[in-house]
Amino acid sequence: MNPISSPLLADLYQFTMLQSYLEQGMHDTAVFELFMRKLPPERNFMVAAGLEQVADFLEQMRFTAEELAWLAERFPTPVIDYLEHFSFSGDVHAMPEGTLFFQNEPILRVTAPLPQAQLVESRIINLLHFQSLIASKAARSVLAAPGKLLVDFGMRRAHGAEAALLAARASYLAGFSGSATVLAGALYDVPLYGTMAHSFIQAHADEATAFEHFARSHPDNAILLIDTYDTEAAASKVVRLAHKLATEPIHIKGVRLDSGDLAMHAFEVRQILDRGGLQQAQIFASGNLDEYRLSDMLASGAPIDGFGIGTALDISIDVPAFDCVYKLQEYAGVPRRKRSEGKATWPGRKQVYRRFDEHGGMLADIVALEENDPQPGQPLLQPVMRQGVRIQASPDLQAMRQQTLQNYTVLPAGLRGLKKSAAYPVTISNALQALASELDTRIV
Amino acid sequence: MNPISSPLLADLYQFTMLQSYLEQGMHDTAVFELFMRKLPPERNFMVAAGLEQVADFLEQMRFTAEELAWLAERFPTPVIDYLEHFSFSGDVHAMPEGTLFFQNEPILRVTAPLPQAQLVESRIINLLHFQSLIASKAARSVLAAPGKLLVDFGMRRAHGAEAALLAARASYLAGFSGSATVLAGALYDVPLYGTMAHSFIQAHADEATAFEHFARSHPDNAILLIDTYDTEAAASKVVRLAHKLATEPIHIKGVRLDSGDLAMHAFEVRQILDRGGLQQAQIFASGNLDEYRLSDMLASGAPIDGFGIGTALDISIDVPAFDCVYKLQEYAGVPRRKRSEGKATWPGRKQVYRRFDEHGGMLADIVALEENDPQPGQPLLQPVMRQGVRIQASPDLQAMRQQTLQNYTVLPAGLRGLKKSAAYPVTISNALQALASELDTRIV
Repeated sequence: MNPISSPLLADLYQFTMLQSYLEQGMHDTAVFELFMRKLPPERNFMVAAGLEQVADFLEQMRFTAEELAWLAERFPTPVIDYLEHFSFSGDVHAMPEGTLFFQNEPILRVTAPLPQAQLVESRIINLLHFQSLIASKAARSVLAAPGKLLVDFGMRRAHGAEAALLAARASYLAGFSGSATVLAGALYDVPLYGTMAHSFIQAHADEATAFEHFARSHPDNAILLIDTYDTEAAASKVVRLAHKLATEPIHIKGVRLDSGDLAMHAFEVRQILDRGGLQQAQIFASGNLDEYRLSDMLASGAPIDGFGIGTALDISIDVPAFDCVYKLQEYAGVPRRKRSEGKATWPGRKQVYRRFDEHGGMLADIVALEENDPQPGQPLLQPVMRQGVRIQASPDLQAMRQQTLQNYTVLPAGLRGLKKSAAYPVTISNALQALASELDTRIV
Repeated sequence: MNPISSPLLADLYQFTMLQSYLEQGMHDTAVFELFMRKLPPERNFMVAAGLEQVADFLEQMRFTAEELAWLAERFPTPVIDYLEHFSFSGDVHAMPEGTLFFQNEPILRVTAPLPQAQLVESRIINLLHFQSLIASKAARSVLAAPGKLLVDFGMRRAHGAEAALLAARASYLAGFSGSATVLAGALYDVPLYGTMAHSFIQAHADEATAFEHFARSHPDNAILLIDTYDTEAAASKVVRLAHKLATEPIHIKGVRLDSGDLAMHAFEVRQILDRGGLQQAQIFASGNLDEYRLSDMLASGAPIDGFGIGTALDISIDVPAFDCVYKLQEYAGVPRRKRSEGKATWPGRKQVYRRFDEHGGMLADIVALEENDPQPGQPLLQPVMRQGVRIQASPDLQAMRQQTLQNYTVLPAGLRGLKKSAAYPVTISNALQALASELDTRIV
């Protein structure tokens, strides 16, 4: 059973409900929408990501003989007969990856026969929640450190392999320069960056020899890690090594700092390198970094050219989850509404319209009914799949990254900062509010 | 390329270092240990988990033709030649899964030729960090709610598919009753639990009909979700339904609450069910739960029989990462030590000894050198793999779960609570301290 594409990537209740739907003949069209109930207090906006993996999952969703045999021990024959011939035949509308979104705005809509639309719930949330979470976190570093090299270093503390891979993809989409995770380079063409570990230094009898060995292996692009024993002493060794190698075609690209007061070390090391004639050598910093530390270091004028960001990025450490749900909004042509305390939803199939000022800046969004509720502005949900098949090939990741960077430039200025800004206006159309009120009096 | 077993699940620097090691002929034996630098302030102990997946990864680690072709565009031929014939041939020692551990204690040791031991770094950390993180979080709910049914509901907000699967496994290992994640049941034999979603209720014209349809499909084990519109009104509908179905072989197993003040609703609903003759019907609660809310609800005497815990569990929300590292401790027979500011390590290959009092209670741990540094107590690191092959089959997950539950009973009482307790004593042997001091004067 494939651990990332198996249709058993679902909660058990999706199968118990499926059984009831089949027994009751409930095959009418259901409309589910995925949205965020509340913007996390630590975020001014979110970045939609993960649609590509959702479309892959839905297009390829089939039950293998092994999976059917396992299910057959737990569910009656009609359920197995249905799943044997299962393929997803619904429509999907979504915001393109990289779109900035806010609370109450559907970022994806599934329109499919009820048993199908219900069965795909958990994996769709799982994929869109995580990548949107990481892209939204990454965007903050991108905006805090304009023009700097930003690399995802988070594989080791990411929550499993898929998290590491998708974090590399989502952070690149959001504007990072690349990742250290090799498989993300191979699978998604994310640019790869890497230096050396402390163990490389420690495995050598002395640090200077370790530097020389590494530089000889990587004559064009060696980044030497200089904090294993004494950072400034190591910087001086780098200068001596550069002079020793000056007659060979070997150029030391830069150094990496990974501990202590990184800004202070950067100032010291920059002086040592400059005095030694290594003005071109770059300084790269890592070690428990996040967008706040980047912002502080750059504000202090620290001469750092690039940053490796690991744990804080790959688990979105200040907001490791957000309130992202997938809710039934319409069944058999009738709008539906959940009214649970504190968890009520806006019913019906919806569209989000974004209005811009005359300079292209974002003004306000309105969430409206898709039909008979026209609004000014750009509709953000676009058709992605029709009858289970992608309508067109997805844009490549580089192109989506460029669009995402463009999207930041039209955000209201306050929302681009790290501090909590006045909320971006998202309103609910009059027709949608009227529908919700009407349903509240109708459903019992 | 397999997204969970590919050897490209590595940081780029592991390959750039590999190249240098090969060019320098550095094939001597390296000893790396994985340990946690500091116990998170929100935890009194940690639970080791994930060893099974590490052993699988190491045993099966091979480069496919596709992976070699991809690497050949980026690395010189001798690297590719080496990787073409790569298999892991090292030894592994580790604490068995379910062992309770503390700061500075190695939970896994790899002894292998340097290029091999370095290449496996990131995936080993990735696997052990995540499962230990989740098992340690799950243990707190297990200790806070003794005798209650505890179910992992977290797939949708877990960080990707592998995180969902391994969270189900790790929480079961730590004493949970099971998970809602179907594929975790199929892959790891974790017991599965599930009820129904709000969408099931909403898809029906009225709630009472939805309840009846579900009960007819699941005559022995229907758990009805009663908070979609009005919780107490729904509880009365459940009573009426039970009476209506009384002459058929259909028994309603219980109800689930998912919003509002769960304890208050539980008291009300219990009364309604009891008055209606449904004393046997269970009350199950979910919705943004964690060990603190479980503890509070149970302290208030709320009549709740089981809990579904999602986001807080699967991302270990208060501690979504801990400071877990994999460090070179010996190379070519010589102990090694990293001295970076705030990140110094204890050198040499080590063993952890745990002493118990006469009643079997844990007293103290000592971290010592493996050789010529004998200590009283039980050695916690055990041989797992020899020359790349498992020494024996792993115990099954149920057996490991029983042992884990047993391990909690010998913890000092204060450490079993949710509040921060006085730290469990972990000391460093005199010989190990002396070795560290000696290396500090030696390495430059």
